[in-house]
Amino acid sequence: MGQIAWKALCLSLFDYKTEKYVIAKNKKVGVLYRTVQLSIMAYIVGWVFVVKKGYQDVDTSIQSSVITKVKGVAFTNTSELGERLWDVADYVIPPQGESVFFVMTNLIVTPNQRQSTCPESPGIPDALCYRDTDCPEGEAVVAGNGVKTGRCLKVGTNRSGTCEIFAWCPVEKKGRPRKLLLANAENFTIYIKNSIRFPRFKFSKTNVLNTDDNSYLKNCRYGPDHLYCPIFSLGTLVHWAGSDFQEMASEGGVIGIQIEWDCDLDKGSSRCNPQYYFNRLDNRFAAKSISSGYNFRFAKYYRDSSDVDFRTLIKAYGIRFDVMVNGKAGKFNIIPTIINIGSGLALMGAGAFFCDLVLLYLLRKSNFYRGKKYEEVRSTIRKSLPETSVNGNQSCDSLSRLDQLRQIQAVET
Amino acid sequence: MGQIAWKALCLSLFDYKTEKYVIAKNKKVGVLYRTVQLSIMAYIVGWVFVVKKGYQDVDTSIQSSVITKVKGVAFTNTSELGERLWDVADYVIPPQGESVFFVMTNLIVTPNQRQSTCPESPGIPDALCYRDTDCPEGEAVVAGNGVKTGRCLKVGTNRSGTCEIFAWCPVEKKGRPRKLLLANAENFTIYIKNSIRFPRFKFSKTNVLNTDDNSYLKNCRYGPDHLYCPIFSLGTLVHWAGSDFQEMASEGGVIGIQIEWDCDLDKGSSRCNPQYYFNRLDNRFAAKSISSGYNFRFAKYYRDSSDVDFRTLIKAYGIRFDVMVNGKAGKFNIIPTIINIGSGLALMGAGAFFCDLVLLYLLRKSNFYRGKKYEEVRSTIRKSLPETSVNGNQSCDSLSRLDQLRQIQAVET
Amino acid sequence: MGQIAWKALCLSLFDYKTEKYVIAKNKKVGVLYRTVQLSIMAYIVGWVFVVKKGYQDVDTSIQSSVITKVKGVAFTNTSELGERLWDVADYVIPPQGESVFFVMTNLIVTPNQRQSTCPESPGIPDALCYRDTDCPEGEAVVAGNGVKTGRCLKVGTNRSGTCEIFAWCPVEKKGRPRKLLLANAENFTIYIKNSIRFPRFKFSKTNVLNTDDNSYLKNCRYGPDHLYCPIFSLGTLVHWAGSDFQEMASEGGVIGIQIEWDCDLDKGSSRCNPQYYFNRLDNRFAAKSISSGYNFRFAKYYRDSSDVDFRTLIKAYGIRFDVMVNGKAGKFNIIPTIINIGSGLALMGAGAFFCDLVLLYLLRKSNFYRGKKYEEVRSTIRKSLPETSVNGNQSCDSLSRLDQLRQIQAVET
Repeated sequence: MGQIAWKALCLSLFDYKTEKYVIAKNKKVGVLYRTVQLSIMAYIVGWVFVVKKGYQDVDTSIQSSVITKVKGVAFTNTSELGERLWDVADYVIPPQGESVFFVMTNLIVTPNQRQSTCPESPGIPDALCYRDTDCPEGEAVVAGNGVKTGRCLKVGTNRSGTCEIFAWCPVEKKGRPRKLLLANAENFTIYIKNSIRFPRFKFSKTNVLNTDDNSYLKNCRYGPDHLYCPIFSLGTLVHWAGSDFQEMASEGGVIGIQIEWDCDLDKGSSRCNPQYYFNRLDNRFAAKSISSGYNFRFAKYYRDSSDVDFRTLIKAYGIRFDVMVNGKAGKFNIIPTIINIGSGLALMGAGAFFCDLVLLYLLRKSNFYRGKKYEEVRSTIRKSLPETSVNGNQSCDSLSRLDQLRQIQAVET
Repeated sequence: MGQIAWKALCLSLFDYKTEKYVIAKNKKVGVLYRTVQLSIMAYIVGWVFVVKKGYQDVDTSIQSSVITKVKGVAFTNTSELGERLWDVADYVIPPQGESVFFVMTNLIVTPNQRQSTCPESPGIPDALCYRDTDCPEGEAVVAGNGVKTGRCLKVGTNRSGTCEIFAWCPVEKKGRPRKLLLANAENFTIYIKNSIRFPRFKFSKTNVLNTDDNSYLKNCRYGPDHLYCPIFSLGTLVHWAGSDFQEMASEGGVIGIQIEWDCDLDKGSSRCNPQYYFNRLDNRFAAKSISSGYNFRFAKYYRDSSDVDFRTLIKAYGIRFDVMVNGKAGKFNIIPTIINIGSGLALMGAGAFFCDLVLLYLLRKSNFYRGKKYEEVRSTIRKSLPETSVNGNQSCDSLSRLDQLRQIQAVET
Repeated sequence: MGQIAWKALCLSLFDYKTEKYVIAKNKKVGVLYRTVQLSIMAYIVGWVFVVKKGYQDVDTSIQSSVITKVKGVAFTNTSELGERLWDVADYVIPPQGESVFFVMTNLIVTPNQRQSTCPESPGIPDALCYRDTDCPEGEAVVAGNGVKTGRCLKVGTNRSGTCEIFAWCPVEKKGRPRKLLLANAENFTIYIKNSIRFPRFKFSKTNVLNTDDNSYLKNCRYGPDHLYCPIFSLGTLVHWAGSDFQEMASEGGVIGIQIEWDCDLDKGSSRCNPQYYFNRLDNRFAAKSISSGYNFRFAKYYRDSSDVDFRTLIKAYGIRFDVMVNGKAGKFNIIPTIINIGSGLALMGAGAFFCDLVLLYLLRKSNFYRGKKYEEVRSTIRKSLPETSVNGNQSCDSLSRLDQLRQIQAVET
């Protein structure tokens, strides 16, 4: 008998069990359920598959390399500096063409600074003094340029003066430059070469046209006709970022250049094109705020014939560009496809759950349907009774419907 | 007839089919199932919705701009350099106020290096020599400063010496600086301006108070009362990162400043505040390790009156600050809400599956419930029999319970 | 009675409801369903748990600090520069050891540039002239080095010449350097120290062996035996990135060094090791393209005894290294484990749905199974009839099978 039993068992393993359904001939809930089903189908097909491309394996770990190059010259003629020509090596900081670079458009120069003593700049509160004891020796001036020497320097017969300090002297003059120095910077061009790679799909691309024409990159400018000519004039960039060039160049600011690669590799590499977005990143809304603008100080160091160091201090205003690259690539893959279909179908269960609630608790005839849907079994007393006779005993989940239920049951049984 | 049939079909499309359930009046499994249901509900409401905010669409592609500015001066008086004042243009590298910057706190200066010949530094193994043939001409010293000229230089009557090299001479002296030079650096202040933008929600914010009070940023320091004053003293920063300033400033190190924006845009922009975290990023645990500290060499180039280049080599020790910004913003959206509710309900199915296992295989009366749950149908012989009479034939999935099953069946049928 | 009813209700809350199943003794569908079940099980266990480690909580917000240091010297002897030794302070830009750095391997030097007038470089189209009016005064030369002075300079009896410009004079000579200058750079070593931290798990690690042996880092090179010695020779790096050193060093290029930390913290920290990947990031396929290579210009500024600025312009070719760190750490957590099991089980529902389609619509006996699976109930007329007698009325979902259905029904009823 064991033999036969085993065989029966193995056979029964391949019986297919399917849920038993009750057909409720109720058009209201039926329409509701079909609507829910259609919505879920629309969601799966429309949103998950068409919009979000749920059938694709996605690689977001883009490898990117950005090389930038600024071109252009500007001529200035000021009383301080005389006639002077500015080229790339002068106004781009740092020079090495990284993804973050700064184009100097305005500057305050303090030449020939040497380590010595001089009066502190008048605008600094901590350097205000009436007598020498206001300037304790060796104390650094708060938010100032040097350490106090212990003397209070007064001009003429003024009651107050400024502390003498040991510093790089003379100190920088306060105040913003009167007029924009490198107004010409508007015509400078920026070349942004970006090579990307999606390691998972072994796919590489660059944002520069692959041409043999040497003169192409010399004459083109980025535009709807030249999507693969990543050369921008500085003025246009600032304009696209929604700012005014004159204002930005004289106060300084930061512009974000975002390159986005959204590649559908099922459609071929020619459909994988970079998108450029330009934003002003420092807070432009706070034009009147104390924290607006962008500037920094740097120095050029020299040594005179008697081996003493001196320097030229430059407070540079200008535009910093932050090139940011992000992207994703998708390619058909069976696993996400199945997962998305499966979880979409699982959502149907939630829809059925919702319709059940309506059918079993919100309709006038809920009571009847509950009796049909739920078949009560009890293993103790009623073992010998036909199991379909117990359909009068509904379970109840809803507390508020209790009394009503009891009455109906009394009638039915 | 086709007419009627079509109509019937279309009507039947809107019949609602609902699964037929068997009510097992078994309190153990009932309590178990309600517990599972409650846990899943608690998980969905508590974890998915309250903690993880599953009802929100989340944007993690934050656009960020960081501008940094260091302030402060330090006075030093050493035998090598004499009296000297250090200001921002001297000790901050690079000067342009990016998100990664270095504050020099200690240095070894080797002034007046010229291209010529001199003995290699004694500590380098490859430069040790006993005779001229130990220094083959033109060979670069491994981990050294120049190329060998072919001569072995000995001091006095020593048996061994060091190779003569062609290099920037004299070479840098080995050894760490005796004492911390810019001990004052503790009082330097760092201003970190961070403007962020979430492009999907068109939401911008900055970490600086939007005030008209010009003096606010001159006097405030970051603290519980001044969350929108991103000005930190260097000593405090190092302390918050869990390090000792004196040790870190003399050996060098890297501090990570993390700014985190976790914004719930359903609650209004005033609830979207930056959080600052400070960490020592170079391995502080390996204080005694060979790889601890942070330093690098750079040079200032000069030209003398006879047009010969010379330079000052500086080995700089100090603290590098890496400002890292990340954040996410969430806003209510119907799609993730539905997805999360739906997949939560789908989880209930897994709970039911688990309870079914208990009911059908682990209880004493499993056999009985199995018979009620599964209704066997066979399309061949038994076609005319009432389908409810076959409840004695259970399928069995569990191999180990086979014999037991057969006996029960024998009794029942 | 309310008392009793309430008690009954509360008891009925703990009745367990389980779906009623129909066992279809159909081996085809049975085998199909078991296959689907096994595939889903294999997917859950194999893919979700073993490959994707779905039982782990994952932290991808790695905190990373990179410190780089280049070592090595090169000796050159050219007619322009004479004998010269290049050390780290000369050829590494920027010097501060960040994650992006440039090693200069080739250069064009234009010494002693001063602000004055000189002829523009001949190769520039915009500077070509036949008479003085071709060079309007004050106009900048497009893609050139200065502003036109209004004179056209011709050599000898040539018909055409180049405009005179005000610029840093003399201008740089066109053309690439004839031979690789720092060919020795192949032997330079790069030390890449990377400390990481996973904040969620409070786990830190570094890619340098934690040893007390001072000489270890002086002698080791990265390799299968020295995974914790992150020192690479420049030539090897370029080779591993799949490029030719001589070509890359003379034209310039960008190499990406990717450090990947994939840490399974359930297995202990010794199993969490860095992986290095080397890629050429600028588009190497476009060797003949106009956009290949990597170079930039920078200047060293000097001041002569009469206080006039002059500079040395350097066009630097070389290799830029971008060190990129990414990683993730996983640790067992109960929540993702449950989620993954649950959603796997929910997938089974999709499998059952698919098998139902086969059973109910594609088999010869579909009609019969449909009758068994769906039990029609109607609340109006047939209230008193036994509900199991309506099994002849199948619902139909498939329009195309309508007539066939009707005929079968006619036979059955």
